[in-house]
Amino acid sequence: MKPFIFKCEMKTRDYECDVQGVVNNANYQHYLEVTRHEFIQSIGESFEGWHRRGIDVMVSKVVINYKASLHGGEEFISCLNLKRQGVRYIFNQEIYRKSDEKLCISAEVHCVCVVDGVLSRGEEIADSFKQFFTNEE
Amino acid sequence: MKPFIFKCEMKTRDYECDVQGVVNNANYQHYLEVTRHEFIQSIGESFEGWHRRGIDVMVSKVVINYKASLHGGEEFISCLNLKRQGVRYIFNQEIYRKSDEKLCISAEVHCVCVVDGVLSRGEEIADSFKQFFTNEE
Amino acid sequence: MKPFIFKCEMKTRDYECDVQGVVNNANYQHYLEVTRHEFIQSIGESFEGWHRRGIDVMVSKVVINYKASLHGGEEFISCLNLKRQGVRYIFNQEIYRKSDEKLCISAEVHCVCVVDGVLSRGEEIADSFKQFFTNEE
Amino acid sequence: MKPFIFKCEMKTRDYECDVQGVVNNANYQHYLEVTRHEFIQSIGESFEGWHRRGIDVMVSKVVINYKASLHGGEEFISCLNLKRQGVRYIFNQEIYRKSDEKLCISAEVHCVCVVDGVLSRGEEIADSFKQFFTNEE
Repeated sequence: MKPFIFKCEMKTRDYECDVQGVVNNANYQHYLEVTRHEFIQSIGESFEGWHRRGIDVMVSKVVINYKASLHGGEEFISCLNLKRQGVRYIFNQEIYRKSDEKLCISAEVHCVCVVDGVLSRGEEIADSFKQFFTNEE
Repeated sequence: MKPFIFKCEMKTRDYECDVQGVVNNANYQHYLEVTRHEFIQSIGESFEGWHRRGIDVMVSKVVINYKASLHGGEEFISCLNLKRQGVRYIFNQEIYRKSDEKLCISAEVHCVCVVDGVLSRGEEIADSFKQFFTNEE
Repeated sequence: MKPFIFKCEMKTRDYECDVQGVVNNANYQHYLEVTRHEFIQSIGESFEGWHRRGIDVMVSKVVINYKASLHGGEEFISCLNLKRQGVRYIFNQEIYRKSDEKLCISAEVHCVCVVDGVLSRGEEIADSFKQFFTNEE
Repeated sequence: MKPFIFKCEMKTRDYECDVQGVVNNANYQHYLEVTRHEFIQSIGESFEGWHRRGIDVMVSKVVINYKASLHGGEEFISCLNLKRQGVRYIFNQEIYRKSDEKLCISAEVHCVCVVDGVLSRGEEIADSFKQFFTNEE
């Protein structure tokens, strides 16, 4: 596992699996969102708090590569790195099965800031994030 | 099928099924909510519109009896009746498999009105609903 | 909080909330299912294991009383007791907000056993459960 | 709207929206899956039927570009084209709001065939699909 600025542990739920007995593809996107929100919370911020100050962070693009499936009741480690590219905040996210650290998915999630309805560089958010920006991926 | 004041047709989705190949129990509650919202829309109202006027309709109790399972990609007919009992609006809802009209679930959903944060008899909503109240169940 | 045979801690996820900012009603049914599966796992059994031995545990009835709402990112404690009534296993389940132990929902979930396709008293399951049956509720 | 080999109409559901009042990002992936399954059904095939013959179609990559948000209770048109690239079946999918045909998302979903557990070119599936392959995108 390469270095990440944030990791959290989660566990799949049986209702998230489909008839093949593996987690349905769309549910990984939920896991990715939960991980980003946990990260934001860990640095003392929240999407809701930003929203109340007129700053909306929105997903503009998602790329997910599916490598291995998770089954019901399996623990996994959800990791992220963050970089800035123009107006975009790009989260590089990976999910590993906990038992053997097998890579299950790798993803890239692009977010942009909309301040009072206008696309913005989101300097206020950049300040919260700046110690976490990486270039090494 | 007994008489209902409102019916709509829906179709199960594969991702709503769990590893047993049948729709997960909790998803029926989504179907029941969609049906109530379609009914409200059919009479020219909306929960969002009520919300903007300070009226919040909230579910206070749900009883669901599971009779037969739906599978992925199956069409069903979702039906409701409505009665008033004190401060409660009680939706009697049933879901039938379309192919053979087999009863899949029967449910009772109790809603109450909260107007500007206070439990209310919701007379404004009662006006919208009054032609639909039934006693025959 | 009254005595329970099993408790687990969970946290709501932002995507489980609807436009009112509170957890959507149906999602509590997911939490209840996760809690039952965690309980089963804690006693060394699993629904999947039973399924492979020809025993299917199915929900036949759910009653949920909604008392207070959970918001996004809130921690809660999910608790259960279990009793046996004829062919039914009845789970009494309650969910409390962690911060102030406020009761959010109380629920009763009826399960039945189907062994090789036939409704059964499920003696094999009863053996796993017997030390947990309570009458005090 | 450019030409597509398959279109279907759907409607967002209130519980699919999050606290911002718009459909949560992950739910679009559900819509994309439903659309592919409807397409497969429309040509007389099914993922389940293929599965029973030992052929599993699996998503290997998803790219979604978010252009505009859908709100609760909004109708939309979900469209797809299909091409073949080596072992991959690539679905180009777009979702348009019905009221004004505004493009909401465009997506590329890569699927691969696993036959009896081994990555395969999936000639049996290719036969079902061959009249639909396009190169014009």
